[in-house]
Amino acid sequence: MNIRTLEWKNNAVVIIDQTLLPGKLKYRHIKDVKTLWQASKELKVRGAPALGAAAAFGVYLGVKDAQVTDPRKFLRLVKDTSVYLGSSRPTAVNLFWGLTRMRRAAESCAGETVDFMKERLLQEACAVVEEDRSACRNIGKFGAKLIRDGDVLLTVCNAGILATIDYGTALGVMYRAKEEGRRFKVYACETRPLLQGARLTSWELSSQGVDVTLICDNMAASLMRQGRISKVIAGADRIALNGDAANKIGTYSLAVLCRYHQVPFYMAAPVSSFDPQITGGRQIPVEERAATEITDMFFKRRIAPLGVKVYNPAFDVTPHELITAFITDKGIIREPNRQKINQLLMDDSR
Amino acid sequence: MNIRTLEWKNNAVVIIDQTLLPGKLKYRHIKDVKTLWQASKELKVRGAPALGAAAAFGVYLGVKDAQVTDPRKFLRLVKDTSVYLGSSRPTAVNLFWGLTRMRRAAESCAGETVDFMKERLLQEACAVVEEDRSACRNIGKFGAKLIRDGDVLLTVCNAGILATIDYGTALGVMYRAKEEGRRFKVYACETRPLLQGARLTSWELSSQGVDVTLICDNMAASLMRQGRISKVIAGADRIALNGDAANKIGTYSLAVLCRYHQVPFYMAAPVSSFDPQITGGRQIPVEERAATEITDMFFKRRIAPLGVKVYNPAFDVTPHELITAFITDKGIIREPNRQKINQLLMDDSR
Repeated sequence: MNIRTLEWKNNAVVIIDQTLLPGKLKYRHIKDVKTLWQASKELKVRGAPALGAAAAFGVYLGVKDAQVTDPRKFLRLVKDTSVYLGSSRPTAVNLFWGLTRMRRAAESCAGETVDFMKERLLQEACAVVEEDRSACRNIGKFGAKLIRDGDVLLTVCNAGILATIDYGTALGVMYRAKEEGRRFKVYACETRPLLQGARLTSWELSSQGVDVTLICDNMAASLMRQGRISKVIAGADRIALNGDAANKIGTYSLAVLCRYHQVPFYMAAPVSSFDPQITGGRQIPVEERAATEITDMFFKRRIAPLGVKVYNPAFDVTPHELITAFITDKGIIREPNRQKINQLLMDDSR
Repeated sequence: MNIRTLEWKNNAVVIIDQTLLPGKLKYRHIKDVKTLWQASKELKVRGAPALGAAAAFGVYLGVKDAQVTDPRKFLRLVKDTSVYLGSSRPTAVNLFWGLTRMRRAAESCAGETVDFMKERLLQEACAVVEEDRSACRNIGKFGAKLIRDGDVLLTVCNAGILATIDYGTALGVMYRAKEEGRRFKVYACETRPLLQGARLTSWELSSQGVDVTLICDNMAASLMRQGRISKVIAGADRIALNGDAANKIGTYSLAVLCRYHQVPFYMAAPVSSFDPQITGGRQIPVEERAATEITDMFFKRRIAPLGVKVYNPAFDVTPHELITAFITDKGIIREPNRQKINQLLMDDSR
């Protein structure tokens, strides 16, 4: 099945409404920046790389019909729109990376008309999409070398087609390994509270013909104890310069369990997930989300008592010493540290 | 609030239907063994100690109206009823312990009439209830000494009033510490798939005035990393002679996380949770339950795709080396091993 997570069509960002999966595969045509902000906030579109692309188009949606002719005023509008979109989700750096690219694209148009700048912004957003497409293919190519025949992999949240433009990061590694003829199985952690593993990953992997078994997050340790997991592969939402990496809540837990059970723990992400502004994991802002995500089962029936206190961090940070390797679009970084990551970012900016 | 988990009243076992909590507090009057089997299977009544008491009354319900006068035929009926009730849940040893007590009580009536045996069985079931009551009070008394002012405790599933006759095991320790004037907070893991932590523990602790915050199971590691957890206290469904202990799925995961973060990990259980027939954790049968518990959110709305494969173990086994201490009704057993547990069981059988 061909899944189109995000595309630009008829002056609209067309996304799959991921809150309706797996029950319904419904595409939404988003034509204004406010609706896009809402879609990002409500996880209709989600996944670090996809958020970067959505944000880039969001900037364009926010300024394309602006009735300004003064380039400086237009540039201010681009910046304001970027700040606004950045407020939808704080943790994934790709979102800010996408916004920064758009701002820089606008800034690069010194001396040009507003119409020219608008055209330039649309090109930049399309470039973000194309680069994500190729980054994921490269992550898959490098990562697939790590997969052996007979492996049993475990993943968390959804770092697949639905989190990117296509192919995915952690799941892209699996798709490539499958294309290369390797046989393996996958356990998908359901990923509470919003169940991206149950709703999205198990659906996506099945749709691509990958053998997937769904478990609750608290069952992973038991599988490792039984020797039934060969490797864990997760995505990453933001990676600090020292290699500490934020990802969906529960990822850090898996990394500790991997260390205890001597199971390799990999994180797959494009270079745009590395944040040169952040030196260590403690500086990464972790989004705390609404209590109702935990107390009400997937936005519907209440399962905890009224008035109960809730702690609902959407992400956690895995320290670099628990990460066997990063799988990036520029290659694999084993035992990640600041020096290796600096090198990666320098190579990338050349 | 006074919660009555299980009592014998007007020839019926009266239980709270725990599948309806926290939305409804509804008592069910169970008058026949088949309904009791169903209630056990469907977790209307649950928790290792409460299952022991329910099973004991279940035997009585199953034989009290039997139209047999031959004591040997009656004894056979007692045994058959025990086997039947044992098939409802395989992991918690207290259930089998309750059944064994009933069988032995019947066997001890050599030379007596069937009517006498029936009376004896009712007395035995009532004794099981009273002993559980006093065992939990003792667990609380011993365990409360471990709680310090300002502690932040974490627990999993429900090892409270709702899992016993009253007071609870792991939560009984907290109730006693509160009675003794200690101030502390509790994080409750929601405990997927059936959410006993969200539905039962957060409700029960709130109802008893304990400060409780609900988290998803995959958030515990992150709290430990932040140094926000002083101790973990869980219940236990079956403890092997070497100290390996089965409890609700996810408990083992917490034990590993405790070891990594140097947080003490306690399990609270009555002596009836120790199984003298089982030398190590690998021999403990782990119940696997229906896939729909994971794919359908609390028996209602589907959240995973149709046809997805599911692994749903209801319990896991924590090896003794990860258990800081058992808190039992006979005292605290630190660094549990076979010798210490043998001693406990010998002292108990005196």
